[in-house]
Amino acid sequence: MAYDAIETPFGKTGKILGGCATYIGLAASLFKAKCGIVSVIGDDFEQAHLDLLKARKLDLSGVETIQGEKTFFWSGKYHNDLNTRTTMETQLNVLTKFKPVVPDYFKDASIVLLGNLDPNLQLAVLNQLSHKPTLVVMDTMNFWIESYREKLDEVIGKVDVISINDEEARMITSTHSLVEAAKKLQQMGPKYVIIKKGEHGALLFHENQIFCAPALPLENVFDPTGAGDSFIGGFVGHLSQCKNVSFEEMKTATIIGSAMASFTVQKFGTKSLEELILPELKERLDIFKSLTEFELT
Amino acid sequence: MAYDAIETPFGKTGKILGGCATYIGLAASLFKAKCGIVSVIGDDFEQAHLDLLKARKLDLSGVETIQGEKTFFWSGKYHNDLNTRTTMETQLNVLTKFKPVVPDYFKDASIVLLGNLDPNLQLAVLNQLSHKPTLVVMDTMNFWIESYREKLDEVIGKVDVISINDEEARMITSTHSLVEAAKKLQQMGPKYVIIKKGEHGALLFHENQIFCAPALPLENVFDPTGAGDSFIGGFVGHLSQCKNVSFEEMKTATIIGSAMASFTVQKFGTKSLEELILPELKERLDIFKSLTEFELT
Repeated sequence: MAYDAIETPFGKTGKILGGCATYIGLAASLFKAKCGIVSVIGDDFEQAHLDLLKARKLDLSGVETIQGEKTFFWSGKYHNDLNTRTTMETQLNVLTKFKPVVPDYFKDASIVLLGNLDPNLQLAVLNQLSHKPTLVVMDTMNFWIESYREKLDEVIGKVDVISINDEEARMITSTHSLVEAAKKLQQMGPKYVIIKKGEHGALLFHENQIFCAPALPLENVFDPTGAGDSFIGGFVGHLSQCKNVSFEEMKTATIIGSAMASFTVQKFGTKSLEELILPELKERLDIFKSLTEFELT
Repeated sequence: MAYDAIETPFGKTGKILGGCATYIGLAASLFKAKCGIVSVIGDDFEQAHLDLLKARKLDLSGVETIQGEKTFFWSGKYHNDLNTRTTMETQLNVLTKFKPVVPDYFKDASIVLLGNLDPNLQLAVLNQLSHKPTLVVMDTMNFWIESYREKLDEVIGKVDVISINDEEARMITSTHSLVEAAKKLQQMGPKYVIIKKGEHGALLFHENQIFCAPALPLENVFDPTGAGDSFIGGFVGHLSQCKNVSFEEMKTATIIGSAMASFTVQKFGTKSLEELILPELKERLDIFKSLTEFELT
C-alpha cells in the first residue's frame, strides 16, 4: 500500500492512493470470495483510504501501521508514448521495517498472490502459511531481477503462476523470444506463465498451450500506473470463484484481468477501480469477446 | 517482383525470389479465384521462377519483361530482435522504367490490390480499370510517406482498405494512439483500416468496430521478409471467395492473413508459401481459433 504522485501527458496528481495491494484488492474485491491484504503503512495513511478499502469488504487485519513513520511514496513521470516512465522520487519509509505477519485466519487461504516486492518478503509470507494454497501467484519487477536474483529464483520455484511483463521475462531468461522465455520460466517452477505486453495484450502459457488476450484498443491511455496489478487482481478475483482451476478458467481470468486493466488506465490512479461496478465489467467483457471472435468456414 | 538477398541471425541467402507481388500472388493463389499480376522484370528473371508462379495458376500476362535490364534487387540484414533491419543495397533496375499496363481482361477485376510501390504507379493502375472493383486494397511504406505524400494521399482517398504497419500509421497521421490513427486514416478515405503490429498481431478497424488478430507466438521468427505481403495476399485471397464483403468476412480474412504470415516467417523468402497446402493452412487456422477463444460465464 502506498502513496503515489503521477505525471502523464494528460495531467499531474498530488499524493494519491497507490500500491500493488491497493490495486489488486480493489480489482479482486469485485468478486465474491473473501480477500485480505498483508501490507504496511505509516501513520500518515488517511482514514478515508482505509474506509474506502473496508467498504469494499477487504480484510485489513494483516495491514500493520507503524507509528511515527510514513507510508511508502513513489512519484513518477510518464513520457509521451506512455510506455516509458522516469521515477522522480522513491521514499521507502515504512517498507524498510516491513516484516509481514500473516493473520492466523489468512493462513489457509486458497489463493495467495505475492505482489511485486522484495523476494525475501514474498518468501516470508509463503513460509507462514499453514496449508498449501490451491494457487500461488507472483509478480516481480526489474529491480528484484537485477539485485535479488538468487532469492527471486527461490520464490519462482515455489509458485504456480508468474505474471510479469515482456521485458522482465526476457531479462530473467536471457531470451528474446517470448515463447522460449515462457518455456524457461516454466522449467523454473510455475506451471502457468503470464507475459504482459501492455497495449499489445497478454500471453498465457501452460504446458504446450498458449492463449493470447488482447488489450482493449483505447483512444488514449490516461495513466498506466497499476495496470499490471489490476490485471492480476482481476485474474485471481475470477479464479477465486471457480471450483477448479483449469487452463480454460485461466483464459477467462486473463481476459477479466485485461478488462480490469483497461479500466484502470482510463483515469488517474485507483479512480476507475473505485467507481467500477460489476455490470460495467460484464459489458466490457462482451467487448473483449467481440474484439477477438471470428468465424471459420 | 524482385530478387532479394537476406541475412538474419539464423543464416544468409544468395539471390532469392522476392517482391510483394510474388508473396501476395503465392498467398492468394491458395484460394479459388483467378489471380493476375501486373509487374515488371528484367531478362535475368529465371524461367524456373516464372514456372513456379504459373504452376500456381497465377496469370502473368501483366508482367512486362524489359530486355537488357535487370530485375529490382534488394538486400538487407535483420538485427538480432528481427524487428529492425538495415538495407544493404537497393538496385531499382527495371523499376525506373516501369509503366504498368493492365491487360484488358484484368480491367474488370473484382478485387484490386495495390502493392507497396510508388503511389504514381498505384494511381496509374487504378486509372486503367474499366469497372469499379468491389474492393481496392493498398499497402505502402515509410519511403512513400516521407517523399511522395501528396500523391500517396490521393491513392489513400481512392481505396477501400489500407493495410500498413503501426509505425507507418503513426507517421501518416502524426498520432501516437493507433485507435486515433485509424480514425484519421478512415477520414482520408478507406472504410477499412488494417494496422499490422508484427509479432503483436494486427488490428482491423471499420466505423466504430475493432477486431484484434493475434500473431502466432513462434519460438523463432526465421525471416520476416514478406510477412506483410503474405498477410494481405491471404486477406484478399479469402475475400475473393466471399459473396459479400462484410466486416465479419474481413475478420476471418485478417486471421487468414495472419496465418499466412506465420508460415512465411518460418523459412527464408517465399519457401514456406511455395510449399504450403490448404490442409496445413486449415490446421493453423484452428490454432488461431484456440489461441483466442474463451468462455464467459
